[in-house]
Amino acid sequence: MVRYVGVKHATGLVASVGIERFIIGLAQYIEDDFRRWPQFEKSARIASHSADGVIELMPASDGELYGFKYVNGHPINTRRGLSTVTAFGVLSDVSTGYPLLLSEMTVLTALRTAATSALAAKHLARKDSRVMAIIGLGAQSEFQAIAFKALLGIRHLRVFDSDPAATEKFVDNLERLGFAIDVAASSADAVIGADIITTVTADKTNATVLSDNMVGAGVHLNAVGGDCPGKTELQRDVLLRSDVFVEFPEQTRIEGEIQQMGPDFPVTELWQVITGEAPGRRSAKQITLFDSVGFAIEDFSTLRYVYDQTQGTGFYSDLDLLAEPSDPKDLFGMLSRPAQQTSRPLLAAVEA
Amino acid sequence: MVRYVGVKHATGLVASVGIERFIIGLAQYIEDDFRRWPQFEKSARIASHSADGVIELMPASDGELYGFKYVNGHPINTRRGLSTVTAFGVLSDVSTGYPLLLSEMTVLTALRTAATSALAAKHLARKDSRVMAIIGLGAQSEFQAIAFKALLGIRHLRVFDSDPAATEKFVDNLERLGFAIDVAASSADAVIGADIITTVTADKTNATVLSDNMVGAGVHLNAVGGDCPGKTELQRDVLLRSDVFVEFPEQTRIEGEIQQMGPDFPVTELWQVITGEAPGRRSAKQITLFDSVGFAIEDFSTLRYVYDQTQGTGFYSDLDLLAEPSDPKDLFGMLSRPAQQTSRPLLAAVEA
Repeated sequence: MVRYVGVKHATGLVASVGIERFIIGLAQYIEDDFRRWPQFEKSARIASHSADGVIELMPASDGELYGFKYVNGHPINTRRGLSTVTAFGVLSDVSTGYPLLLSEMTVLTALRTAATSALAAKHLARKDSRVMAIIGLGAQSEFQAIAFKALLGIRHLRVFDSDPAATEKFVDNLERLGFAIDVAASSADAVIGADIITTVTADKTNATVLSDNMVGAGVHLNAVGGDCPGKTELQRDVLLRSDVFVEFPEQTRIEGEIQQMGPDFPVTELWQVITGEAPGRRSAKQITLFDSVGFAIEDFSTLRYVYDQTQGTGFYSDLDLLAEPSDPKDLFGMLSRPAQQTSRPLLAAVEA
Repeated sequence: MVRYVGVKHATGLVASVGIERFIIGLAQYIEDDFRRWPQFEKSARIASHSADGVIELMPASDGELYGFKYVNGHPINTRRGLSTVTAFGVLSDVSTGYPLLLSEMTVLTALRTAATSALAAKHLARKDSRVMAIIGLGAQSEFQAIAFKALLGIRHLRVFDSDPAATEKFVDNLERLGFAIDVAASSADAVIGADIITTVTADKTNATVLSDNMVGAGVHLNAVGGDCPGKTELQRDVLLRSDVFVEFPEQTRIEGEIQQMGPDFPVTELWQVITGEAPGRRSAKQITLFDSVGFAIEDFSTLRYVYDQTQGTGFYSDLDLLAEPSDPKDLFGMLSRPAQQTSRPLLAAVEA
């Protein structure tokens, strides 16, 4: 049997643990896996592009466990009342090839993206950061806010979205959770006084959510929304003034803000900052930029975490996804056993 | 909700339809998709190799539907009482990126492999073929026999396996199904008088299941077992005397019997024989060889077929694999709804 964690299980688990504690635990799993980055088999995601969006497979393995995520990205979906992103993932035992866990990952992707952003900021933002601007108040925004509260103690938010309904939803969702929220009149207004700026808009265009004049010395930029070819948020000049940190350069050069730059534009891999092999922030005046696109190892960590967290709980059910013949050489024999769903035995149905 | 077809559903469906009728219908879907081969987005499978085996992802899309299969191959598993191959697959709507179907594919892979073999033989074997030799009587063997009966009317089998228990299992499974089965004393004995020779052994070695002197004029070879690097069944000289037909050359040159040959060894793509763009068998003396490795489009066809066949039946259940927030921008709101599995609402669990 394969452990199945559906949407109800996942939301129930998060509620049971508490969302901040869940994100703190998840960030720890991600950090642990980033520390052993060279052990992983890594590849850029395998994308199938179409007119309306993309479907991707994101595999990763540490040699003992194998994980992959299926995820789509269809910005047009919100106009149809559907989600831009849906996702699920599978964790398997490398030694047998058998799947152990099948889990929804729409909710979990939002949590792991936020956990990774906050983990990067923990290593890159000024330690005295108190105020975060968030530009773009769609599906990912609340998760970002809560992760930065959980990992960095950020309680003061300055937020902007061109859609008043999205802004109202954001404030409604978070006002009871201990945040001071300033609703700004524009992106330029939102970033005033911010120590950290999170950009997380959804439009698939080369947008200028942040222009160069909006970014002051010492700021940490958490650029989440620019995550596929043709979808960026930052003016090119911002990148030229920043030290840029990435997950997996081969993927980020195609999908991230740095798709605007040449193939030799200097970047630092986040895992090397975490292990101490590369410097992170070196001065209070430096602009640090985490060019987040989301990498398969973060999903691998999430699947590991969910597998461990659901152990011994009621937040999963069992799926008969594995054919387990009593004799492995006798797969056919499974078909001649009386099937539960039919009264016609197989052999009678074969026209001899 | 995503339609879920587990092992019990799949075996129940096959029993309900009848295995021969099921294979005939499946072969028709595969043939239909081979006929429109150029419409597909194709790639060699994405493999993660380890000491004991391999885990692979096999995606394909026709621009309207997207499918992928997860499949492992661990020959060592039978010694552990586990299956060499387990598999599952997903079919999605390209326009939304939403999964439509999640299905077990261990049983279905055996059926689609056999259906593809018989489909190839229908186009390549002599029309007067009556006798098939099968060498290797493991999990795939009965499916091959039944597919060749269903599509080509083959009822006379000459079979060999070095494992007497596997042989006994094969005869037990098939003797009531209208076959005349000769159990041979060796591979060389099995092929005597055979019009079609199916090799479907499991060992991951460069084996010589068929040597050159065993293959007479006019035979069709259905080489199923040689399907990954370092795993072949035919002596090189057999290939030199044969006209070789393949699924997707880029993949077969790595995984098939032709891994023994140079990169320019001539092959014909099976889909071109089916559409009439390339010749198949041209004489009764010619040796034709289908170098089967299994390609993603066959799994895509299988998922399409299972989706259509389960429609309106009880052979599936619904999985809550998709987070469907009432407002797509309010994914977070799903977490604050009272979850069914917990009595603690999320907001109370957040340490404000």
